[in-house]
Amino acid sequence: MALADILAERPARRAGITSAVSVLKQRFGERLVTGEDVRRAHAHSTTYIPTQMPDAVFFAESEDEVATLVQLCGEYATPIVAFGTGSSLEGHVNAPEGGISLDLSRMDKVLAVNAEDLDCTVEPGVTREALNAHLRDTGLFFPIDPGANASLGGMAATRASGTNAVRYGTMRDNVIGLTAVMADGKIIRTARRAKKTSAGYDLTRLLVGSEGTLGIITKLNLKLYGIPESIRAGVCPFPDVKSACDAVIQTIQAGVPVARIELLDALSMQAAIAHSQLDVEARPSLFLEFHGSQSSVAEQAELFGAIAEDHGGGPLKSAARTEERALLWKARHQFYWAALALRPGAKGIATDVCVPVSRLAECIAETQGDIDAAGLIAPIVGHVGDGNFHVTLLLDMDSAEEIAAAEAFMARLAERAVAMDGTCTGEHGVGQGKRGYLRKELGDAVDVMATIKKALDPDNILNPGKILP
Amino acid sequence: MALADILAERPARRAGITSAVSVLKQRFGERLVTGEDVRRAHAHSTTYIPTQMPDAVFFAESEDEVATLVQLCGEYATPIVAFGTGSSLEGHVNAPEGGISLDLSRMDKVLAVNAEDLDCTVEPGVTREALNAHLRDTGLFFPIDPGANASLGGMAATRASGTNAVRYGTMRDNVIGLTAVMADGKIIRTARRAKKTSAGYDLTRLLVGSEGTLGIITKLNLKLYGIPESIRAGVCPFPDVKSACDAVIQTIQAGVPVARIELLDALSMQAAIAHSQLDVEARPSLFLEFHGSQSSVAEQAELFGAIAEDHGGGPLKSAARTEERALLWKARHQFYWAALALRPGAKGIATDVCVPVSRLAECIAETQGDIDAAGLIAPIVGHVGDGNFHVTLLLDMDSAEEIAAAEAFMARLAERAVAMDGTCTGEHGVGQGKRGYLRKELGDAVDVMATIKKALDPDNILNPGKILP
Repeated sequence: MALADILAERPARRAGITSAVSVLKQRFGERLVTGEDVRRAHAHSTTYIPTQMPDAVFFAESEDEVATLVQLCGEYATPIVAFGTGSSLEGHVNAPEGGISLDLSRMDKVLAVNAEDLDCTVEPGVTREALNAHLRDTGLFFPIDPGANASLGGMAATRASGTNAVRYGTMRDNVIGLTAVMADGKIIRTARRAKKTSAGYDLTRLLVGSEGTLGIITKLNLKLYGIPESIRAGVCPFPDVKSACDAVIQTIQAGVPVARIELLDALSMQAAIAHSQLDVEARPSLFLEFHGSQSSVAEQAELFGAIAEDHGGGPLKSAARTEERALLWKARHQFYWAALALRPGAKGIATDVCVPVSRLAECIAETQGDIDAAGLIAPIVGHVGDGNFHVTLLLDMDSAEEIAAAEAFMARLAERAVAMDGTCTGEHGVGQGKRGYLRKELGDAVDVMATIKKALDPDNILNPGKILP
Repeated sequence: MALADILAERPARRAGITSAVSVLKQRFGERLVTGEDVRRAHAHSTTYIPTQMPDAVFFAESEDEVATLVQLCGEYATPIVAFGTGSSLEGHVNAPEGGISLDLSRMDKVLAVNAEDLDCTVEPGVTREALNAHLRDTGLFFPIDPGANASLGGMAATRASGTNAVRYGTMRDNVIGLTAVMADGKIIRTARRAKKTSAGYDLTRLLVGSEGTLGIITKLNLKLYGIPESIRAGVCPFPDVKSACDAVIQTIQAGVPVARIELLDALSMQAAIAHSQLDVEARPSLFLEFHGSQSSVAEQAELFGAIAEDHGGGPLKSAARTEERALLWKARHQFYWAALALRPGAKGIATDVCVPVSRLAECIAETQGDIDAAGLIAPIVGHVGDGNFHVTLLLDMDSAEEIAAAEAFMARLAERAVAMDGTCTGEHGVGQGKRGYLRKELGDAVDVMATIKKALDPDNILNPGKILP
C-alpha cells in the first residue's frame, strides 16, 4: 500500500500525522524512514492479522531521542508503536491508526552488570541471546526464554515467559525496575535497585505487560542468576496427555524444583522426531530440565522418574552431557519449523492460553477434540508446569474458509480457558488478536485499565488499538 | 479527643462525613461504632506518629457490604481507611481527615483451597497464622511471615514480606489475583486463577502495595507451597557485620536456596540472648533456615558452613529438631520484646530500608555510626538476603528532644538508602511516615502515581493522606 493510500484511509489522525512526519524528518533526517519496505517490515509479525503499516519508522539511538520523539508526536496527536525485533504474535506492532513505528533495536547496550547483586541494566534493544553472550564470563545468566531471540524491552512490554518460567518466573518477576518515557514525554524510573520495595504503587509491574500503551521502556534493570553447577535434561513418554499432566502436578506438589517441564502431544512428537531425528517414540512426552548441584539434580531426576512411573509413564531418557541436552532443546526450540513440515506450504499460527494446572489435561483434551471436529491440523505444546499451552494451527492462508474456521476455533479456545478460570493468554499478550476476550475474562476490571490508559495517555498516542477493546 | 473536637478540626470534609455517619448508622445499626475506645483502637499502631481517629468504625461482614459502604461514603466524599489487624508501622490506619475505619477482621473465611493448583482463596481478614492452621492437614503452607500475625488483606495492601522472602518472595509474588471494591463502588476481579497471564495491565500488582488508597481488597487468591520434606535451622556468628554480609552475598551467588537468612548485630544478639536464653555468643550472627529434601538440606548447610568459614565466621550451630528450630525462631520473632528489655520503659519504633545487597554492609556500618553519634539506642536486624534491614529505636516518648533526634536519624537513614540506589522502605510501606522521601527516591514517577490515584479515586476517599506526598 502506498503512503498516499494510507493517508487517505485514516482521516481522524491524518493532518497531525502528516505534520509530525514532516517535523520529525527535519529533526532526525535519515533515521526517519518512510520507504515502504521498511514500513512493511515493521508491521509484520507471525500472525493471521493483516499488516497495518506505520507512516514512518524511526530508529532511536538514545533515551533522550525517544523522549523528543514522544513529545513531538504528542504535539501532533501522532501514534507511536514501539518495535523491538517484531517477534510478537498478536499484532502488537501493527499501526492500525498509522503514525510512527519506534524501532529500539539500536539501543542495544548492556549498561551495567552488578554481579554481587545478581542484576544488570540494559537498553531495551538488547536481545536475550545478546545479554547471555555478554554474561558468558561472569557465571551468570538471564533465564527467561520465550523461544524467539526477542528484545528484552519487547519481552518486558509483553510480559513474556517461556520454557524456564516454572522455575524462574516470567518477565513480571525478573524486572527489578525500569525507565520509561511516558506519553507526556517525561522520563520516569519506576524503582531503584533494591531487591524489594514497598515504596508506593508498583509502576514496574504496571508497565511490564502494558504492550507499549502506557510508556516506552528505555532501560531495564533485570535479575540474573548463577549458572547452575549441574544441568540435566531428559525426555519422558506417557500413555496419554492426562497421565503426563498428572505427573506434572505431583512433581510440582512434591516441591521438585524443575527448571523446565514441557509437554508435546503425539502429533508434536511426530513432527519433532521427523525434524530433529530424535530417537524416541511419537507418544505424548515431557521434555524436562533439572538445575542444581550434582546430587540435587540426580535426586530430582530420580524423584521425577518415580512419579512418572506411578502414572504409567517412562522411562525418563536422560541427557546429562551438554551436547545431548543441546540436541534435545534444539528439537523443542525448533518445534515451529518441525510443525510446518507436517503440512508443507502451510503457515503456522500460534495461539496460547493458560489454565489452573488441575484443569490442564481436560482443557487440552477438549481442545484436541475441537481441532479434530473443526478439521484443522494443529499440534499442541505446553509449558505445563504453569498450565500454559500453545496450539500451532497449520493453515492454508489462501483459504478464507480455513482462516475463518481457525478464528472460530481460537475464540472457542480462549472462551474454554476462561471458563476453566484461566486466561485467554498466558504469555503472548493481548495485542490486537485477543482484545475481544478481555472483558469476558476480566469484566469491569477492563474499565479500570481503560481509566488508567486515559489518565496516562489522554490523546491515545501510545500504541492505539491494542489491549483495550 | 472527643468527636466534637474532631468534627471542629476538619472543616473541609465535615458536613459530608456527618451526613455519611448518620446514613451509615441507619443502614448498618450497631456494626457502625462511634465510641471513642473503638475509634482509638483503630487509629493506633506501633509508631511515633500521633493517633488520628476516624469518626466511626464499620465492621464489615461481606464484600457486598464493603461495596455499599464505599458507595455511600462516595456520595458524601467521606474517607474510608481499611483496617486489618492494625499491625502496620507507618501510620497506615490513621484517619488524618476523619471518616470511616473499615474493619475487615470479620471477613475471615478461607473460601477455597485448591491443593492440586497450590493456591487458595481467602477473605481479607484471615490472618497468616489462621490460614496456616487451616492448611495444617493438607501438607501445604503459606510462607510469607512479616512477624506480626497480620491479616492477609493488610499484608497484600502493604506489600509485606519478612523472613522467608529471600526464597519465597514477597506478597507481590504470592498474590495470584484479588477482588477489590474500587472508589466508585464497583467490584473488580484482577485476574483469574491461572498461574501466569499476559492479559492486560497487571492490576493485581497495582493494588498490592497500594495501602488501601486505590481499592479495598475483599478476596485474595494466594500461592501455596508444599511443606518441605526437611527443614534445618542454625545460627552462625561472624567477627563483624561486613563478613556476615559478604557470606550472604556469596551464599546467594552460589545458588544455595536458603529459606531464611537473618542478620542480628551485636546489640541485637545481646538482647536476644538475654531474652531467650540462647546458648550463643553476642557477636553479629546470621540466623538461617534451609528447606528441601534431607540430602539437599544437608548439602545447603554444609555449603553455607564452608562459605562462612571463608569469611572468618562459624561454626554454624545447627538445629535440626523441630523444638530446637522453634526455640531459635522464637528468639528471632520475639526480638521486638527482647529489644525493649535493653531499655526498660522505652518504646520501640521500627523503621526499615532496603539497598542492593552489595551496599548492605556499608549501609549498616554508616547507620551504626549514625546511631552512636546521635546518642540513640537502636539494635539492627535484617532480612539480609534481600538487602533489607530494620532499626528498632528505643525511645523515651516523653522526651521531645529524643523523638526529634530519632526523626532526624530516620530521615538520614532513608536518604542514605536512596543514595545507595535503595529504597526508603523495603517492606513496611509508605503510610504517613515515609511520604516525605518518595519523591527523593522516585522523582517524577510520583506524578504518575498521583495521576493514577486521581483517575481511580477522584474525590480522594480511599485512605487520604497516605503514600502520596
